[in-house]
Amino acid sequence: MSQKPTYLAGVGTALPGKPVDNTELGRHFGVSDEWVDIFVGTRTRHFARDLETGEVRYRLADLCAEAGHWALESSGLSGADMDFLVVSSTTPDTLLPTTAAEVADTLQFNHLPVYQVQAGCSGAVQVLELGRSLIAAGHRHGLVIGGDVTSKHLDVRKNISRLPTDELVNYVLFGDGAGAAVLSAEPAGERVALRAVLNRFTGRGRPTGQVVDWYGAADRDTERPMLYEDYKAIEESLPQMSVEILWELLDGLGWSAADIDYLLPPQLSGRMTQRIVDHLGIEGVKEVSCVDRTGNTGNAMPFLQLAELMPQLQEKERALAIVVESSKWIKAGLALERV
Amino acid sequence: MSQKPTYLAGVGTALPGKPVDNTELGRHFGVSDEWVDIFVGTRTRHFARDLETGEVRYRLADLCAEAGHWALESSGLSGADMDFLVVSSTTPDTLLPTTAAEVADTLQFNHLPVYQVQAGCSGAVQVLELGRSLIAAGHRHGLVIGGDVTSKHLDVRKNISRLPTDELVNYVLFGDGAGAAVLSAEPAGERVALRAVLNRFTGRGRPTGQVVDWYGAADRDTERPMLYEDYKAIEESLPQMSVEILWELLDGLGWSAADIDYLLPPQLSGRMTQRIVDHLGIEGVKEVSCVDRTGNTGNAMPFLQLAELMPQLQEKERALAIVVESSKWIKAGLALERV
Repeated sequence: MSQKPTYLAGVGTALPGKPVDNTELGRHFGVSDEWVDIFVGTRTRHFARDLETGEVRYRLADLCAEAGHWALESSGLSGADMDFLVVSSTTPDTLLPTTAAEVADTLQFNHLPVYQVQAGCSGAVQVLELGRSLIAAGHRHGLVIGGDVTSKHLDVRKNISRLPTDELVNYVLFGDGAGAAVLSAEPAGERVALRAVLNRFTGRGRPTGQVVDWYGAADRDTERPMLYEDYKAIEESLPQMSVEILWELLDGLGWSAADIDYLLPPQLSGRMTQRIVDHLGIEGVKEVSCVDRTGNTGNAMPFLQLAELMPQLQEKERALAIVVESSKWIKAGLALERV
Repeated sequence: MSQKPTYLAGVGTALPGKPVDNTELGRHFGVSDEWVDIFVGTRTRHFARDLETGEVRYRLADLCAEAGHWALESSGLSGADMDFLVVSSTTPDTLLPTTAAEVADTLQFNHLPVYQVQAGCSGAVQVLELGRSLIAAGHRHGLVIGGDVTSKHLDVRKNISRLPTDELVNYVLFGDGAGAAVLSAEPAGERVALRAVLNRFTGRGRPTGQVVDWYGAADRDTERPMLYEDYKAIEESLPQMSVEILWELLDGLGWSAADIDYLLPPQLSGRMTQRIVDHLGIEGVKEVSCVDRTGNTGNAMPFLQLAELMPQLQEKERALAIVVESSKWIKAGLALERV
């Protein structure tokens, strides 16, 4: 399936409040900051919720609209130029209205298609691919956004020091944030061509690696856990799946590993990212990672990496992003080139 | 934005268990069946949850997979022909994995893009439009599905007779179900051309008409209501918005009202549907409605109407579907023609 490239015209991000370091996190939740340093490898993250009071200081829609605003700024295009809006998240503010509808209202968009995608780590790739398809269908420009406020699932008043490790990890792995990109049918702004997008469900017959649940009014009394991760399956699968994504993207384009200048690896945690990069074993590429400073921000993550890539990427240089969603095993990735 | 049409090759539906009539509903919840008959105008609906025990008998993914199966059957195409899957719902089984991923697994799909859209009443139109865009981007066939299990938000053990009317309505308005369509780049199966799709956010600066919320682990003790509808705003807005959708679709195609053979009106409730059809005032068209038998099934609704339309629609005949999402005011609709 060949098609003319779509272009990234601008990228923007939003992180709520000040960074929370491991000392503060450890003190608040009653866990060892040294354990977080070594076991997780994440140094800081941002939370939309106040750790002390539990107060929600930023809605997901606030973060997404802010990221969208900065993406528009960097593209040189205006909100009025946008023909569509697509937002993805695991943790929407409400089921209805969609967070996308709230973002459209905040950005003063009207009379355009607005989509909300429900996704995990592959969400950013999914909205870039849907944006590319909407442009193939005839639209000229669109705004795509990914974000998560995972702290909606963290009880900030809890002392977690006695939780089993696999539950404790949920409190120290994630961060809140949003990222956005302006897509264009023609080169504009940042002039980065989206050469390939991979978005492949590979979950047939495989047990789920991650569950994020929600309560409805009818199951308020449920004892069902709201978060579950099979970290063993994730740690076992991610390095190999990352290798497969790398080669599927390269093969599809007729590129070799030597053609890549920048690598944007999966950002589960600082420690896992290091293991994956080592496992990929490609040399001479610059790694673009930020999970050690932001925590795993889910649907925002690849946009945060793209924002770090933009000032470095020179004309004709190429970058490859690798993304794995462990919920039901999605292989995802991007190939980019500045024109 | 002109483009070659995409074709509906097959349509399928799934409703859980036996229909629940107003006598049974009234007896169970302690409300008058006569009030439901007259005020709501819905006679029967289906529930995925057992009314007596609260037991969940069907996941949303079960209903969606069943509807998808029947859509494939009626299209003459097989699962292996599908290049993508898009599912929409207000009420996904879990936030992750997506219901779409579970449906893909059930239908034995693998190695294809799988998307989950979060939407209200306009969801069916949104997945048809995304499907059309994915086909414009180069895919040949895809399966799109919409469904809801609204009973996740109804406490079936509750006597609701003393609730204020606007809360009570939530218990008698909705039903559970799913519907699906197979899309194709070329005429196949049912050979119904999708001549136009309207999907227009019109919520800038307007208060929300409907809220559906969810609990995360951090807000289990919240007193926030999980469902809210501004029925006054909905009753005031829907007839006028329906007229606007009708004329936007007709104008865009250069059709007149006399060119329409079948009308698929919004399906909020039997009573509202009648008011809207009267307000549209177009004559000589056959109405295709099923809300009086299924309740408002949200993302499934237009597919249920399409399934009723298929055996009636003759070659060269045209149908128009009008859909309004009140959460943040989306105008949506379809124009169809059998080729």
